[in-house]
Amino acid sequence: MPAMQGLHLTADLQGCSTERPVMTDPAALRQLCLAAVQAAGLLAVGELFHRFAAPTGEPAGITGVVLLAESHLAVHTWPELGAVTLDVYVCNFGVDNSAKADALLQWLLNGFAPQHTDVQRLARGRALVSASVS
Amino acid sequence: MPAMQGLHLTADLQGCSTERPVMTDPAALRQLCLAAVQAAGLLAVGELFHRFAAPTGEPAGITGVVLLAESHLAVHTWPELGAVTLDVYVCNFGVDNSAKADALLQWLLNGFAPQHTDVQRLARGRALVSASVS
Repeated sequence: MPAMQGLHLTADLQGCSTERPVMTDPAALRQLCLAAVQAAGLLAVGELFHRFAAPTGEPAGITGVVLLAESHLAVHTWPELGAVTLDVYVCNFGVDNSAKADALLQWLLNGFAPQHTDVQRLARGRALVSASVS
Repeated sequence: MPAMQGLHLTADLQGCSTERPVMTDPAALRQLCLAAVQAAGLLAVGELFHRFAAPTGEPAGITGVVLLAESHLAVHTWPELGAVTLDVYVCNFGVDNSAKADALLQWLLNGFAPQHTDVQRLARGRALVSASVS
């Protein structure tokens, strides 16, 4: 039986400005994610965003996911660190969605404008393709 | 500014029996995921499961996520292929959750009982640790 072939991009961001609403406002992050999915030509089939409590009164982080017909997008923000992690995973079931995954990730990176990004590209159902730091 | 350190486990499963309800029944998959999260000592803060349409009458796949205080769990099933992909991602913000991530993945693997599994271990915010096939 075959494994599901696909491409999984991870991006670990540093130096993201907490002033950007996408870091602390679930509605703003949701808007960014759905716009990015649409711009990349992927299909959202569900979404869920959770804002963590901030007992100290500082900006709280958000965890969000968009379920895709092609797999999923996940975002976690840590405003207290200026850090964000992104996951873009697309299956290639009958069609190669890799270019769309790259486009989705790039759109999201533009939304966070990090000072530093560590991207890893995983071939799912196979082995590691490459890792790059910029 | 620091990156968020964490451990991301991916598992690509082959040879999963479609007879198992977790392959096609969102309620069964939800139950497995939440039981696995609890058994691993992680904290669920949200969940979303989507069943895809099956126009041909064949079993349809499911996409599901559980948002964790420690990051997320994602599952995709393809009953038509006997394939499943799993993602377990835990941040290590103040505490090392790696052992809990391993426990969560193992619980899920037991639930699907694949004939073959390809596991990759990604150190988020750093570089690839290792990949293994069993």
